[in-house]
Amino acid sequence: FVDGERLWRRLGELAAAGATGRGGVRRLALGPEEAQARRLVAGWARARGFSVTVDGIGNLFVRRAGRDPDAPPVLTGSHLDTQPSGGRFDGAYGVLAALEVLEALEDGQLCTDAPVVAVAWTNEEGARFQPGTMGSAVFAGQLELASALAARDSDGVRVADALARVLEESGVGQVSGTGFPLAAYVEAHIEQGPVLEEARVPVGAVTGIQGLRWFEVSVRGEQGHAGTLPESRRRDALMGAVEVVHALRGQLLDQDDLLRFTVGRFECAPGSPNTIPGRVLFSIDLRHPDAAVLAARGDLIADVCRRAAGPCEVSVRETMSTPPVAFDPRIVELVESSAGRLDLDCLRLPSGAGHDAGHLARLCPTGMLFVPCAGGRSHTETESAEPQDLTAGARVLADVVCQLANG
Amino acid sequence: FVDGERLWRRLGELAAAGATGRGGVRRLALGPEEAQARRLVAGWARARGFSVTVDGIGNLFVRRAGRDPDAPPVLTGSHLDTQPSGGRFDGAYGVLAALEVLEALEDGQLCTDAPVVAVAWTNEEGARFQPGTMGSAVFAGQLELASALAARDSDGVRVADALARVLEESGVGQVSGTGFPLAAYVEAHIEQGPVLEEARVPVGAVTGIQGLRWFEVSVRGEQGHAGTLPESRRRDALMGAVEVVHALRGQLLDQDDLLRFTVGRFECAPGSPNTIPGRVLFSIDLRHPDAAVLAARGDLIADVCRRAAGPCEVSVRETMSTPPVAFDPRIVELVESSAGRLDLDCLRLPSGAGHDAGHLARLCPTGMLFVPCAGGRSHTETESAEPQDLTAGARVLADVVCQLANG
Repeated sequence: FVDGERLWRRLGELAAAGATGRGGVRRLALGPEEAQARRLVAGWARARGFSVTVDGIGNLFVRRAGRDPDAPPVLTGSHLDTQPSGGRFDGAYGVLAALEVLEALEDGQLCTDAPVVAVAWTNEEGARFQPGTMGSAVFAGQLELASALAARDSDGVRVADALARVLEESGVGQVSGTGFPLAAYVEAHIEQGPVLEEARVPVGAVTGIQGLRWFEVSVRGEQGHAGTLPESRRRDALMGAVEVVHALRGQLLDQDDLLRFTVGRFECAPGSPNTIPGRVLFSIDLRHPDAAVLAARGDLIADVCRRAAGPCEVSVRETMSTPPVAFDPRIVELVESSAGRLDLDCLRLPSGAGHDAGHLARLCPTGMLFVPCAGGRSHTETESAEPQDLTAGARVLADVVCQLANG
Repeated sequence: FVDGERLWRRLGELAAAGATGRGGVRRLALGPEEAQARRLVAGWARARGFSVTVDGIGNLFVRRAGRDPDAPPVLTGSHLDTQPSGGRFDGAYGVLAALEVLEALEDGQLCTDAPVVAVAWTNEEGARFQPGTMGSAVFAGQLELASALAARDSDGVRVADALARVLEESGVGQVSGTGFPLAAYVEAHIEQGPVLEEARVPVGAVTGIQGLRWFEVSVRGEQGHAGTLPESRRRDALMGAVEVVHALRGQLLDQDDLLRFTVGRFECAPGSPNTIPGRVLFSIDLRHPDAAVLAARGDLIADVCRRAAGPCEVSVRETMSTPPVAFDPRIVELVESSAGRLDLDCLRLPSGAGHDAGHLARLCPTGMLFVPCAGGRSHTETESAEPQDLTAGARVLADVVCQLANG
């Protein structure tokens, strides 16, 4: 009963919330565009009679009752926020595929034992507020609700205030506590990598998520006049930071090309062409599937920074550390067997990206399924996916969720 | 008749326009803080009966009449705008020393043959609008008025519109054309380097200004997901830019430590920790006193960039080129002899920084005098200078201007 056209149409309507005009989406967590997206999803859900609620960190839940009102629900979903210059499918697909599962059950008048709940987690991307996967981390008890609500964006706006505004604008439910017992969690997502497309396989059964460590590096020098200060007297924070990143790059080269090292944010102050920079702040995103390798490589960073910074001072702060996650083998198998029953090719693969499912795996049997995206591109406006793959993924998701909800 | 206390008091009052609260000043060209500074200067000038006018690019002129109404005036001054995180003396000192000269003449009831005009040039720093030394360049016919008025800041605001607003807010005179014949130009300024302070000399006779070339370098890669894309498939604009700056630094090392190479602005987009940057834009400020050396080193830049950028595309645009300037030897001597007559030590030195005087040198006999600043620090909030040095500089300036205005 999965309706691929409905799913595709809604992906288009959702993409209008924060559309960049170049095919991409800018829908930062708890901003006005995300409030608009929440209004759309809540509207579609209420039109089918599903109950819509929001928890203390803003996670949005759409519930379809089951036969047994006391049974813990099967949860499925993803997130509605995007990167500052992101695409139409990252997150949005998982939320709308989840809603599609609920609607398909409704269209088929199928009753499940356990309730089925679709979720849109708050602030998965971490682009506006840090840390990312904030909503699922709070839900899973990995992050204190109060500390998440106190996080500020670069303009100094607190999560708590942004959330209050979104709830006001989106007219969605009451804010209650957070967290409840779950039977299982399954998340559908575009792969964000090239494996499925190259293998021409529409569905991936995700085995786990590689580990991730985030660092914030601050390089402090001394501001000065670009014309008068000789090189020998300078403490140039930009040059210090460039040498630091250059040295890190050399140290973090990986012959197996499995280690992922990214400096995504790099801010240089005061940022005037004829002033020697006094301060640089940059981020490090480091990932590896093997916990021991990730620990060893990440632990090198502070020392490499200090040795390369020349006359500048440097400080390194680890802002996040997420060990690799292995998903529940029964759910990996369930995704494979559902795909087989629906006559769809499927292969097993690990996730290169982090997902809310990583936190949920600590709470209940958890799994993910991937669909291909063009060229493996994601976190960019050119992110693209094929309607038939998205439909295939939603059909497998519906089958997996039904089996889980019927024990 | 120079009144050092009045000069010091006014420097303090002017520093309140854009005060950062940490001892520094943020008074960007043609912003509300600069409008406030213009109001102050115009108010002090009008209170003494001097005429105040503004030309087509916003240069502010304060005129004290001479005996001969047809004689071209002697011009002296500097600028009121500052760096985004600048100090209290850069520019402000030259404007207030010039006003002090006019007031000293008035206090002493001294009549000069030629008129004496104090000037505050528009947008010397180039921090908000490019190019810098905009007002003096237009005045000297080095830059088209229309193209200067069309320049935009990073928010897209045009010089023309910012200027209209400043004139409205500051209530200063009429906008007319620009440029008029001059007898001579003399500018007082803090040294912005360490030479005078180390030599314990209160006044420097400036021999000229080193040459300057500005470049804008754009590095384009491909945005992507930090977790999924292997190093071997990345076109990471930040890594490209880091390698480019690292290579430039190696190529532009100067054994004599005379070449000045600064990357002051460095912007990385989209600037999210878990997104591979797709674009970096950075500035290069390159200076040397020898025109041939500056030409040879600067001409290397585009090639070094291209060779170091790896899989990224790089483009280099030269946005400004100012050859070294030699000041009029008679004015250099006049500064020295005036200092001698006032029993003040004086030494000759070149200017490491660019100044509006560089453009004026094409129009008329031009010179500058420097006073020491603490630690050679400038373009920073900790910029500092001693009242007795500032008074000494203003006394020499008054003497030089008088002699020039009396033929």
